[in-house]
Amino acid sequence: MRIALDVMGGDKAPQVVVEGAVTVAQEDGDEIILVGPRDTVEAELARLKVKGLPLSVVHASQVVGMDESPTAAIRQKRDSSIGVGLALVKLGKAEAFVSAGNSGAIMAAAFFVLGTTPGIERPALGAIFRVASGMAIMLDVGANADVQPSFMVQFGQMGSDYMERVYGIKGPRVALLNIGEEETKGNQLTLRAHALLKESRLNFIGNIEGKDLFRGPADVVVTDGFAGNIVVKVSEGLGETIFEKVRDAIGRGFISRMGALLVMPALREVARWMDYTEYGGAPLLGVNGVVIIGHGRSNAKAIASALRQAKRMAEQGT
Amino acid sequence: MRIALDVMGGDKAPQVVVEGAVTVAQEDGDEIILVGPRDTVEAELARLKVKGLPLSVVHASQVVGMDESPTAAIRQKRDSSIGVGLALVKLGKAEAFVSAGNSGAIMAAAFFVLGTTPGIERPALGAIFRVASGMAIMLDVGANADVQPSFMVQFGQMGSDYMERVYGIKGPRVALLNIGEEETKGNQLTLRAHALLKESRLNFIGNIEGKDLFRGPADVVVTDGFAGNIVVKVSEGLGETIFEKVRDAIGRGFISRMGALLVMPALREVARWMDYTEYGGAPLLGVNGVVIIGHGRSNAKAIASALRQAKRMAEQGT
Repeated sequence: MRIALDVMGGDKAPQVVVEGAVTVAQEDGDEIILVGPRDTVEAELARLKVKGLPLSVVHASQVVGMDESPTAAIRQKRDSSIGVGLALVKLGKAEAFVSAGNSGAIMAAAFFVLGTTPGIERPALGAIFRVASGMAIMLDVGANADVQPSFMVQFGQMGSDYMERVYGIKGPRVALLNIGEEETKGNQLTLRAHALLKESRLNFIGNIEGKDLFRGPADVVVTDGFAGNIVVKVSEGLGETIFEKVRDAIGRGFISRMGALLVMPALREVARWMDYTEYGGAPLLGVNGVVIIGHGRSNAKAIASALRQAKRMAEQGT
Repeated sequence: MRIALDVMGGDKAPQVVVEGAVTVAQEDGDEIILVGPRDTVEAELARLKVKGLPLSVVHASQVVGMDESPTAAIRQKRDSSIGVGLALVKLGKAEAFVSAGNSGAIMAAAFFVLGTTPGIERPALGAIFRVASGMAIMLDVGANADVQPSFMVQFGQMGSDYMERVYGIKGPRVALLNIGEEETKGNQLTLRAHALLKESRLNFIGNIEGKDLFRGPADVVVTDGFAGNIVVKVSEGLGETIFEKVRDAIGRGFISRMGALLVMPALREVARWMDYTEYGGAPLLGVNGVVIIGHGRSNAKAIASALRQAKRMAEQGT
């Protein structure tokens, strides 16, 4: 298994990215192709005193900034670590590409470099999250700000394939994120998408409301890229806010500080439930090749998880 | 102050609704007009042994179910507690109407019975929530599944008026919920709404992302009724899920159970931060009259908070 990794992607790149690669190369023995400016990559490898690991370097002279315009970036930076990494997948020199960089630029570049798979009009970004019954995927969470109802059926198809192949779920339950459970509820988009999903060959179980998102029972949650992106970010923000508040409130009194020491293992367990570094990154589905987009704030552990997720996807042929 | 209250609205009606009314009549001395089937209301008052309080009863023979179609309900049930309660406001016999019933039916009926205020095309439902800097309002959270960019400017106006009058905030900061902070980010709707908000006389501070929703710095968060409704429900669902997980995790070990007793006051403080029963209900803005829609799961305390919120709004002339 050869995985191309964008060394320059993420807020803490290149340090934590190379550290994540070293972990996986060491523990799993997979070949990681480090893509980025050769000097920078080699300086990191020297710093970590890496020897005899299956790590190689492919030079890319340019870097796409986290806030750069995706369209400008792919037009003007043909030798970026994102472009070169995707080209390795396109040319069959890597089985997957992982980057925690500018997600808009990665999605745009993947669309142009790899192209979409048959029957898919637009790629979609998936968010993997934990629900009562196990794991679930929600898509699209950011590749398409505006969608057509037909795209949403394709999102359901891509999500089903992913859950079936990567998590071994037979006939994944597909639900449509909506503002009511009844099929008469929704906006113009979800009303039309609901009708199409119902006619499709997917195991469509109907609408799911926001309040039931984390309780299941869906394995695949279909939504447009605008609502999906907002749901992911609100959840992340709210989770962090609640934890800060718990910590602040507990930290204020001596007695509750003593209690905090005792409940800490339990709180850590809950924090782990919400922790994206455990799950890796967001798979970009519907393109000809395995692409995982890591969180911009990824640490070394998150990069390692993303690499392992890419490997699993590539092995399952998703 | 006379507030009409829908006795039949909510999952736990009529019991908790009448209990909430009794609390406010007793503690604040406001006149609550209990709207519902006379026998039912009087049986509840008898059960609570109410005497000498400023409570009156206005008979309404029909009840709109929580899952009933709003349009069918307003067409077929002309003598529902929702319709009669709103008519009291229309006729000047009450200064406000509160219901924890079928929100779609309340919004549709309010639109037809009360009409919209000048310059407002569509009423909007507001969600009041706590942020780092104090309180904020997000709207629309469910009155309009599909909106036009012009509506969103009106949402900003209504939200600003509300925060200024009810919370005394001068020149409230208005933000647009979006998938990126830059003004070039968004879907077709938010891109156009952003341009209009920028040109408006509102104190528009630009886009806000989901992750920053609970941190401020906006006093008014503008969004469409679809995304807004999903954000509110996802937040509620996630908050509950996190609390269940904390409780379950803590409950499993003897040592953490001991710790739990010590941290409980702190956890309760955090729970209160998220507790809708503290804030009352969702104001329906843009109609000619004060209308508060309570949560379907309202308990007596939530009903009392909604009544007090209605009073505050009516006093401020919002």
